[in-house]
Amino acid sequence: MRIIDVREIAIKLNGRIANSLVNFTKHTVSLVALISDQVSEGKPIVGFGFNSIGRFAQSGILRERMLPRLAEAAPEELLSKNGAGFEAEIIANIAMKDEKPGGHGDRSGAVAALELATWDLNAKLLDEPAYKTIRNSFGVADLADSLPVYAAGGYYYPNDSAKRLSDELLDYQGKGYNSFKIKVGGEALREDMLRIEAAVAVAGKGSRVAIDANGCFDHQKALEMAVAIDPFELRWFEEPGDPLDFDLNRDLTENYNGSIATGENLFSLMEAINLMRFGGMRIDKDVFQMDPGLCYGITEYHRILKSLEEFGHRRKQCYPHGGHLINLHIALGLGLGGCEAYPEVFQPVGGYSDQCRLEDGKIAPSDAPGFGLEQKENLYPLLCDLVN
Amino acid sequence: MRIIDVREIAIKLNGRIANSLVNFTKHTVSLVALISDQVSEGKPIVGFGFNSIGRFAQSGILRERMLPRLAEAAPEELLSKNGAGFEAEIIANIAMKDEKPGGHGDRSGAVAALELATWDLNAKLLDEPAYKTIRNSFGVADLADSLPVYAAGGYYYPNDSAKRLSDELLDYQGKGYNSFKIKVGGEALREDMLRIEAAVAVAGKGSRVAIDANGCFDHQKALEMAVAIDPFELRWFEEPGDPLDFDLNRDLTENYNGSIATGENLFSLMEAINLMRFGGMRIDKDVFQMDPGLCYGITEYHRILKSLEEFGHRRKQCYPHGGHLINLHIALGLGLGGCEAYPEVFQPVGGYSDQCRLEDGKIAPSDAPGFGLEQKENLYPLLCDLVN
Repeated sequence: MRIIDVREIAIKLNGRIANSLVNFTKHTVSLVALISDQVSEGKPIVGFGFNSIGRFAQSGILRERMLPRLAEAAPEELLSKNGAGFEAEIIANIAMKDEKPGGHGDRSGAVAALELATWDLNAKLLDEPAYKTIRNSFGVADLADSLPVYAAGGYYYPNDSAKRLSDELLDYQGKGYNSFKIKVGGEALREDMLRIEAAVAVAGKGSRVAIDANGCFDHQKALEMAVAIDPFELRWFEEPGDPLDFDLNRDLTENYNGSIATGENLFSLMEAINLMRFGGMRIDKDVFQMDPGLCYGITEYHRILKSLEEFGHRRKQCYPHGGHLINLHIALGLGLGGCEAYPEVFQPVGGYSDQCRLEDGKIAPSDAPGFGLEQKENLYPLLCDLVN
Repeated sequence: MRIIDVREIAIKLNGRIANSLVNFTKHTVSLVALISDQVSEGKPIVGFGFNSIGRFAQSGILRERMLPRLAEAAPEELLSKNGAGFEAEIIANIAMKDEKPGGHGDRSGAVAALELATWDLNAKLLDEPAYKTIRNSFGVADLADSLPVYAAGGYYYPNDSAKRLSDELLDYQGKGYNSFKIKVGGEALREDMLRIEAAVAVAGKGSRVAIDANGCFDHQKALEMAVAIDPFELRWFEEPGDPLDFDLNRDLTENYNGSIATGENLFSLMEAINLMRFGGMRIDKDVFQMDPGLCYGITEYHRILKSLEEFGHRRKQCYPHGGHLINLHIALGLGLGGCEAYPEVFQPVGGYSDQCRLEDGKIAPSDAPGFGLEQKENLYPLLCDLVN
C-alpha cells in the first residue's frame, strides 16, 4: 500500500466580511489530496484535508519545501505499524525535515493540511467516520455521537446595523443553533454594546452569546470592555488582546469574572504551554481554541491536549477555532467541549453538510467515511477537480 | 518617484553542513529587488534585500499574498514624508494587510525581504552606505565606522574531527577573526567537550569562543552542558533549548554564571517581549540575537530595541543572528554590540565583500551605497539576473 500522489490547490473562500482587524475578501485555504493506490468501487481511495480557516493557503511552503520531502521518502516509511493505514505523525515529521524550531506561523498550517488528509485517508481505508478512527487511535473512551455547537458569525459588513445582526442570528436560530458568537472591537465600545444587546435579545440570555475581539484591544481597552460586558454574564470574551500577550490575558483573568477564550492564533505545543504557564487560564473556566488545522494537525493538537491535562485543565474546556467538518470530527473524536459553525461564511469549506444532524444546539456528523467532505455539495466539485 | 516593479527569486545556498537539528543542504533565501523609476548612470536605481539566513525562501507568501497587495497600493502611498525616498514601515504594513495577529513564522521573513530592500533603495537614492541612512533615520548618535565581529562556523560535517574544526578556526584566524562560535548538541556531551577544548586552544581563551546548541537540549541536558562548560568561561551559551521555552531559559540564567544568548528564532516584538518578561535575561550580561531579516525588517527590529531598553537592557547586548552585509549595516547603524560572519558557508549571501575591512576582530563596511551587495562577487551576477 502506498501514496501515489500528493496534490494541492489554493481555493478562494467567499464572503465580503471583516472582523475588527482583518477583511476576508481575499482569503484562501490549501486543499490537499493524498491519493493512495487502494481502490474502492473502481476509484482510488483519496484522503482530503485543508488548513482550517482564517489565515491563508500554503501553496508555496507545500510545493517548495514539504511535498519534495515527502516525495523523497520511501513509500513504506509512511505506513502505520499495523499496516492498516498511514502514520500521520511520520508524515508530519517528514514534512518538517530540516526546519528549525520556533516560527510557528504559516508552515504549521501547511503541515496540518497534509496531516489531516492522512486521517481522512485512514478513516476511508477503514470505511468509518474519522471521529471513530481518531477515538480508537488515541484510546478516547467516549460514546457520544453529537456535541455542542454554536454559530459563529456577527462579522462587520459594509452598511451594517443592529437589525442586520439580529436577522442573521434569528436565521441561525431557525436552523437549529441556540448559541452564538459575534465580533466586537471593530466599532467604538458604545456601538459594540448595541450589537451585544441585540445578540442577547435574540439568544434569550447572555450565556448563549460569546464575543470575539480578534486580538484588537490593548490592555486598557480590554479591561474597559470587560467592565462593560460584566452585567451580561456572556458565555465568553474571546481573544481580547494580542494572542501572544500572555500578561494581558492573565491580567484579564484576574479582573473579569466571566470566561476568557483564546488560543486560535497559537500554532504549536510550546506556545500553548506558554499560555498555560503565563496566561492565567483558570481551570474549568477559561476556554482553549487552538485549531488542529492551523497547528500541525491532530498529532500536535493531541500533544497540546495532554499538556493541558497535565496543567490540570479539562479537555471539555476546548472549543477549537474553525467551524467545519474536520474540526467536528476531531472535537467529537477527542471528547472536546464542542465546536463552532459558520453557517453562512467561509464557503465552500466552512459549515457542515446537509447530512449532519443539528438539533437543540448539538451537531452530529453523518456516517460517511473520513471527514465526509464529499457530502458538502459546494466542496465536492473541487475535490473531484483535484483528483481528476 | 515610484517603484515600477518588485521581483523575487529563491536562491539556493551552498554548503553540506548541519547543526544539531538541521541539515542545510536544501537551504534557500528570497532575494528581492525593488526597481525604482530613478536612474543613475543610465541604469535604474534598485533596492535589494533578502530574508537573512537559516530558514527558507518565501516565494509563495510573497507572490500569493504580499506582492499583489503592494501592486494594489497607490504609488504615492509608498513615499516617505519628505519625498526623498520610500517609507519602509508603510511598505511593511501594506505587505501585512489583512494578516491576523500571531503566527510570526515564515511571513515575517517575507515582509523582511521587502522591508530591507526599501532601506537599500533609500540609501542608494541618497548615495550613501545604508548604515548612515539607518543612523539618521532613527537618530542614533554613534560615530563608529566598524564594529566587533566573530566568525560563526564549527558546524558538523560528514566524517568530522577535532582536527578539521581546529583547521577551520585557524583559517578564520588567518583572515583576521579573533573570536569564534561553534555548534554543540549534535554529538554526545563528551565529544562536544573535545570540540570546545579544540576551539578554546585555537582562540587562546574561553571568552573568545561561544557555543550554539540551536535549541536542541531539553531542561536536563541544557543544565548538564552548563555545568560542563562552566570552567571554560565561554563567551556565551547560545539557544540551549526551544526558543519559545522561556522557563528553561530563565532556569538556566539562574543556574549558570556565564552569558546566555538567544532570540534568533523569535520573529516579532511580542515574542521578544515575552523573552524579556519570562526568560530571565540578565541586564548587561545576556545576549539578544533577533535577526531583522527574519522578523519583519528594520522597522520591527527597532521597536524591539526600544522595548529592550525600556526593560533596562542595553543595545550593546544585541548581536543579530545572520552574518552578512545587511546585518553589518544594521548593527553599525543602530549601535549594536556587534555582528557575526560566516566566512565559508551560506554563500552567496553569507559573509562580507572584499571591500569590507576586517582588522583585530572588527569589521568595517565599504562606502558603497546601500548595503553594498553589488560588491559581493558571487552575489552580483544574481542581482543582475533579477533586474535584467
